Amino acid sequence: MIRLKLSLELNYEILQPNCDFIFNIHAAHTRSQTVLQENLFINQPVTPNMYSDPLTGNRYMRITAFPGPIKLIYTATIDLAHHMMPPQLLPEVPIAQLPAMALNYIYPSRYCQSDRLQKLARREFGHLWQGHSRVQAIQEWVRQRVTFTSGGSNASTSAIDTLIEQVGVCRDFAHVMIALCRALNIPARFATGVDYGADPALGPQDFHAYVEVYLGDRWYIFDPSGLAIPMGFVRFGTGHDAADSAFATIFGTVNSQSPIINLEAINDPANNYFVPYRCSDALSTDA
Amino acid sequence: MIRLKLSLELNYEILQPNCDFIFNIHAAHTRSQTVLQENLFINQPVTPNMYSDPLTGNRYMRITAFPGPIKLIYTATIDLAHHMMPPQLLPEVPIAQLPAMALNYIYPSRYCQSDRLQKLARREFGHLWQGHSRVQAIQEWVRQRVTFTSGGSNASTSAIDTLIEQVGVCRDFAHVMIALCRALNIPARFATGVDYGADPALGPQDFHAYVEVYLGDRWYIFDPSGLAIPMGFVRFGTGHDAADSAFATIFGTVNSQSPIINLEAINDPANNYFVPYRCSDALSTDA
Amino acid sequence: MIRLKLSLELNYEILQPNCDFIFNIHAAHTRSQTVLQENLFINQPVTPNMYSDPLTGNRYMRITAFPGPIKLIYTATIDLAHHMMPPQLLPEVPIAQLPAMALNYIYPSRYCQSDRLQKLARREFGHLWQGHSRVQAIQEWVRQRVTFTSGGSNASTSAIDTLIEQVGVCRDFAHVMIALCRALNIPARFATGVDYGADPALGPQDFHAYVEVYLGDRWYIFDPSGLAIPMGFVRFGTGHDAADSAFATIFGTVNSQSPIINLEAINDPANNYFVPYRCSDALSTDA
Amino acid sequence: MIRLKLSLELNYEILQPNCDFIFNIHAAHTRSQTVLQENLFINQPVTPNMYSDPLTGNRYMRITAFPGPIKLIYTATIDLAHHMMPPQLLPEVPIAQLPAMALNYIYPSRYCQSDRLQKLARREFGHLWQGHSRVQAIQEWVRQRVTFTSGGSNASTSAIDTLIEQVGVCRDFAHVMIALCRALNIPARFATGVDYGADPALGPQDFHAYVEVYLGDRWYIFDPSGLAIPMGFVRFGTGHDAADSAFATIFGTVNSQSPIINLEAINDPANNYFVPYRCSDALSTDA
Repeated sequence: MIRLKLSLELNYEILQPNCDFIFNIHAAHTRSQTVLQENLFINQPVTPNMYSDPLTGNRYMRITAFPGPIKLIYTATIDLAHHMMPPQLLPEVPIAQLPAMALNYIYPSRYCQSDRLQKLARREFGHLWQGHSRVQAIQEWVRQRVTFTSGGSNASTSAIDTLIEQVGVCRDFAHVMIALCRALNIPARFATGVDYGADPALGPQDFHAYVEVYLGDRWYIFDPSGLAIPMGFVRFGTGHDAADSAFATIFGTVNSQSPIINLEAINDPANNYFVPYRCSDALSTDA
Repeated sequence: MIRLKLSLELNYEILQPNCDFIFNIHAAHTRSQTVLQENLFINQPVTPNMYSDPLTGNRYMRITAFPGPIKLIYTATIDLAHHMMPPQLLPEVPIAQLPAMALNYIYPSRYCQSDRLQKLARREFGHLWQGHSRVQAIQEWVRQRVTFTSGGSNASTSAIDTLIEQVGVCRDFAHVMIALCRALNIPARFATGVDYGADPALGPQDFHAYVEVYLGDRWYIFDPSGLAIPMGFVRFGTGHDAADSAFATIFGTVNSQSPIINLEAINDPANNYFVPYRCSDALSTDA
Repeated sequence: MIRLKLSLELNYEILQPNCDFIFNIHAAHTRSQTVLQENLFINQPVTPNMYSDPLTGNRYMRITAFPGPIKLIYTATIDLAHHMMPPQLLPEVPIAQLPAMALNYIYPSRYCQSDRLQKLARREFGHLWQGHSRVQAIQEWVRQRVTFTSGGSNASTSAIDTLIEQVGVCRDFAHVMIALCRALNIPARFATGVDYGADPALGPQDFHAYVEVYLGDRWYIFDPSGLAIPMGFVRFGTGHDAADSAFATIFGTVNSQSPIINLEAINDPANNYFVPYRCSDALSTDA
Repeated sequence: MIRLKLSLELNYEILQPNCDFIFNIHAAHTRSQTVLQENLFINQPVTPNMYSDPLTGNRYMRITAFPGPIKLIYTATIDLAHHMMPPQLLPEVPIAQLPAMALNYIYPSRYCQSDRLQKLARREFGHLWQGHSRVQAIQEWVRQRVTFTSGGSNASTSAIDTLIEQVGVCRDFAHVMIALCRALNIPARFATGVDYGADPALGPQDFHAYVEVYLGDRWYIFDPSGLAIPMGFVRFGTGHDAADSAFATIFGTVNSQSPIINLEAINDPANNYFVPYRCSDALSTDA
């Protein structure tokens, strides 16, 4: 099992009378992700309005903040007990057998215009065996074509832009992979959280965007940007794409500082806590 | 009250071994839309898989059809008892007070790129009183700029395309209006159904796309293309936009024929059934 | 040598008081394309304003037509004496040595957004030997990815759209190939004319769009849609892309009929006139 | 008359073995813009290849530079004797009477997709008197809708993007205005040079992009971003849009520093040299 200690600090300067925020910075409640302990500090006297999405386990916090600086510090201890499966046992699920909640994720969305990619996806991947290995082939194809480049994309960049320009950050890798999966009728969704194990040379620890694909009977993790260790990801939220999955949606004019994030794994083999490692098994946080 | 008799016939020729369909052609179950009687005929020996979305009342039917012709006939008798409100009593709802289920509809989606329209929306509508009249101003603005033109748009056409090219059909009018509402943080969703009262010169009765906007404490109907009588709309489904709200999503190669639709209102004042009329009150089918 | 007999009939119904047209339907005057005889009939008493572009040899005809039907019939006898070269002798030309008139064709244009394709082009073709064979590799790449599909594109479709959706007609094939060449700093331009030798099953003889690429010391013909025999193409015009190279630019509201085109090669070996054939040599109509 | 003293310094660090540049940083030779004296210094032992475009008077300099730093300093003394006209005397020119060289500028280009804006342009400006005042109305419309914002656009931003997002820099203002003019069949082209008289609070003196529109019998200057004094613009080049009109096109990997530009007007009324001022006359540098 994996035990992680997370701390997360956000700082904004609010430049208008009132400013609404919707945060998704609490570790999600899922069958395999358990929040042992958590604490939230806000330096303004606001009353957070918390709500959870029963379908996804996403936990949202809405606040209305006052002008001036606002600081949020979230700390948590999280246990992860992934469902692990040999990839070769994971088939794609025919449309006729997909659960209703997975069907929502075969349609195109703001940044994942899968409707326009059907011919491309079929030409590249249509001949492959329909299962986890096909999804891995998609992930590999994206990784070979897109170069990780800070500043090479912006908030409007969509999967089609990234396919054409071939540069981006983790969210762009995720959008291309999701769009290609959906173009083949494979349910795929956008996941956000905190990465683990990325090369410190790439910058300080940061929020991460990755992909979950429905195979067999649940959602499995894929990390198309490939820079971190999926077994250590703390999941905050899932959604259609970056449009509805931001860690912070801000309704007003603010100056934002870079988040300060620290995520550490407990290394305590005697108690069966080991550090995340790259593994060949498919991982799911759904169970 | 309004009582409608609907009949609907769909015909496809399936050109491959098996073909999955997801239909959304059953009248939705909502607080104000009651299905008194309904019947579905399919000329192939298939077993429809029915499921309803608890949040929206949408009713989906999945089937796997055989090669060759398939015909579906749906008939229903539907009562509508709209919630009606004087528009001037309907305020917009601040972000901090929106119910969680409405928040899903402030984000951009495949065809409604509200994220790119914030400056435009604020310049055009930012100074207006925040309530039903502002939403009506948006509807009027769209109606003045977009010209109804069959064949002037296609399945890839988005709100931005329509804003630029200024032609489209009912779905394009809806996408522009939704995108502008969301750019102002007003929840707006795509609704599909059958129109009522359109000028027969515009063609045979057809599926319709329109808009629902969250004001006060529920979703209200807007019809930006403005060619029909909203009080007579039968609602099939609601969604983010046309991407997840098609009356038929087809997973295969088929030839499609035009749908044959008939919708009639019972005119029986003695029993308090009247025909739909254009009214100045705001209409909701939620209650 | 090749001798072609061309006849071309255009019919429009003009729906407004006056309507300007700019036609480019006269065979261009180039060093290797000689117009032996030509005749133009117009059924309205208009005075065409003819002008030629000295850089390209394009011949334009401007007329202002009256309401009602207008018919144009152009007939010509044309000799083609291509400059032919073994492809392996044709290098790309370094930027520093390109003639000024070729530099115009390394920049992006309306339908050929080469600026966005630099990484893609370099990844796919950057490692290849820089000469005719690299341009052929681009042509082959386009042909493998794009499927000829009438109605799969429209007047707004750009190279990027075609790269994503992978369907199109001859103009779309040409746009993709041009964009990829320019992304590698290889001058490429759009050419229009009449095709020769296309399979009659694809429809009646029609206008054609193809590509000219600057290699060695002149422009060579490429036909990315690959359905016809380049040696038999009659060239009307060249330009940046379809935006400035239409056979007819119409400034008003008209109904257009399909053009009626006939192009035949004289088969008279005794006098050294042979019919066009597919050859492996590179062909230029510039000399 | 206006006499300007210009100095211009460019600095790059070349990161590869050889790097080609095409510069357009010499003051154009036009009928009303006379270069009295000029000097170019380059700190590398390269031999510039100079050529002029006879149609536009643009002067290009091609060089192949060596690895390491390269510095260019251009100084010039320039006399401007504008052709000035009362705007009300300047009509638009019917298609049938436009000179051939102006026709090139009614077609859509990379960043000015006028083909998609015809309905919008006709709805907004179709009812206005056809002359200089209509073009001024277009300029005013653009100025009201677009907000000057450094960093709000990038090298891919087109007129359609700017119409939607409503932010940009001088090149974006120019693209929108050009696209709207062309959508009404008014020839419009992109002009580059050095601005004059901009508020120093907006930053140091810089390259500028503006618009020339063909009215009456020549090209007249418009400055849609409206931050400077058109009478003091030194013109370097004109083209279809930013795609073919950069002051520097760079074929390689370099680090660029900000240009250092100084432009001063001689104030010597005794000799009839006055400083540029905002005037209501239409200005042309063509004669």
